[in-house]
Amino acid sequence: MTQRPAVLIMQRHLAPLSAFLEGAYEVYCFWEGPPIEAAGDIRALIVAGEFELDKDLIERLPNLSLVACFTAGYDGIDVAWCRARGLPVTHAPGVNHEDVADHAIGLILASRRQIAEGDRAVRAGEWSLSSRSITTSLSGQRLGIVGLGHIGEAVARRAEVMRMDVRWWGPRAKEAAWPRADSLIALARDSDILVVACRADESNRGLISQDVIDALGPLGLLVNVARGQLVDEDAVIAALREGRLGAAALDVFAEEPTDAARWAGVPNTVLTPHTGGATTEAVQGMLMLLLHNLSAHFANEPLQTPVAD
Amino acid sequence: MTQRPAVLIMQRHLAPLSAFLEGAYEVYCFWEGPPIEAAGDIRALIVAGEFELDKDLIERLPNLSLVACFTAGYDGIDVAWCRARGLPVTHAPGVNHEDVADHAIGLILASRRQIAEGDRAVRAGEWSLSSRSITTSLSGQRLGIVGLGHIGEAVARRAEVMRMDVRWWGPRAKEAAWPRADSLIALARDSDILVVACRADESNRGLISQDVIDALGPLGLLVNVARGQLVDEDAVIAALREGRLGAAALDVFAEEPTDAARWAGVPNTVLTPHTGGATTEAVQGMLMLLLHNLSAHFANEPLQTPVAD
Repeated sequence: MTQRPAVLIMQRHLAPLSAFLEGAYEVYCFWEGPPIEAAGDIRALIVAGEFELDKDLIERLPNLSLVACFTAGYDGIDVAWCRARGLPVTHAPGVNHEDVADHAIGLILASRRQIAEGDRAVRAGEWSLSSRSITTSLSGQRLGIVGLGHIGEAVARRAEVMRMDVRWWGPRAKEAAWPRADSLIALARDSDILVVACRADESNRGLISQDVIDALGPLGLLVNVARGQLVDEDAVIAALREGRLGAAALDVFAEEPTDAARWAGVPNTVLTPHTGGATTEAVQGMLMLLLHNLSAHFANEPLQTPVAD
Repeated sequence: MTQRPAVLIMQRHLAPLSAFLEGAYEVYCFWEGPPIEAAGDIRALIVAGEFELDKDLIERLPNLSLVACFTAGYDGIDVAWCRARGLPVTHAPGVNHEDVADHAIGLILASRRQIAEGDRAVRAGEWSLSSRSITTSLSGQRLGIVGLGHIGEAVARRAEVMRMDVRWWGPRAKEAAWPRADSLIALARDSDILVVACRADESNRGLISQDVIDALGPLGLLVNVARGQLVDEDAVIAALREGRLGAAALDVFAEEPTDAARWAGVPNTVLTPHTGGATTEAVQGMLMLLLHNLSAHFANEPLQTPVAD
């Protein structure tokens, strides 16, 4: 019997994957202790792409031949560095972008139509006839999308049927059904709602800067379903406290889990625990891609979804 | 100078209307005390249609000639009784159905994608890496719409772009882009999500009965953006407590404001304070219709939006 290839799962929240891997692989879990004795056996790392890949660890795994990213995003992985070491990287594109777009719309509605706040008020017994809330219609709201990739386009399609006025910006012009703003600042200035939906890497860390926040302004709503590092989170919190930014609805944070104390008393926020792309259906799709990539790799066949050059 | 016609605003939450009426009308407010001395002067009542119209009061207003309903719905008004007394009734149709549909989608997302619950968890410091939530994708969910009027159709259009599988039921067959179920029970049985979006009157009180709730079942989500009286609310609460109904996302209640204590400990609920149609834009549209109807009435011109026969 051939020895089964050994794989190492890096993040604890990926633990449920091991049940699906154990049939074909020797599975090590990093949080159960670094696999010092098995270091020579590990042939693939299984990682969540939003966590920084530990290069020191990789250098201690002489037979590592694949970095298999469970997620669509791979912002924590220095792909060029891996490539220079002959390490291919795979990920799970095109699986959960519709779910992430649904979540973005859910965040817009929860904030603008005060669904999260209204729910708290009803539970707290604060609803009285004289306190009836009037909220903002989404009709005619100018929605600016930062990054018109899979997620951004899916958000745009939804926003259009909800009668929002869609525009976008990304660093590269492309054919699209919606107009591209001249710059990110121009997009923010001309938007009531700004949805961050772009890929994150070192080149765009802090893209949503103080200046962008100020351009969005005191009536503006910032939505982030991409990655926390894209946003200057301290600047967002300060602007919300000072009324320079209207509202923020965030699924992703600079650090995750974000510290609850950081948000205490910050007004007009809706905060979800990075659940935008984490649906049962999407996770199943990501698992299938992971299993396909691993088996192709160990059979010396072409990888199904390698990270593109 | 001609004396200005006197109008009586019935519900306290309509108080902001008086600022727009005072230029042309003598405005009385019912909650400031019944207008006993002015009873002979009152020529129009201004009401919110979800509240029961006080027939005894009407009988004490000899010169009343119009019931002007500020809202689209007029379920609290016995239109036939008014008609028999020669009292026309106006309302505000076609103004806020898109906003109500947005709210329905917001409630679906807040419940299925755990936006309200996730927001509470983040604020409570309950987000940890090992507690990552996985939610249900809307993709492929079977959405049943009860009543394919303006609101129902607007919900259907949104649900379709979110990849839900739409069907509907209403007492009368009609041309529609989506299939009509044979019965309400069949619709509930074949739906993952049931959205109540029909007009309410005495004929359909309690339409969403114990049987309908049981047909929707332990994984089903009940959404109500229409009127509380359409739903057997006690049966919903019992079914949620016993796990016979999966979840409920409600903007309307049997009594409004609903008692917070009634919902304490009832699992899997999202509750909003009847804000579905109450947007700034919709309220402006309703105000314009009210003013047009009043001025047409007092000029002996055709009413702009009378309640249809």
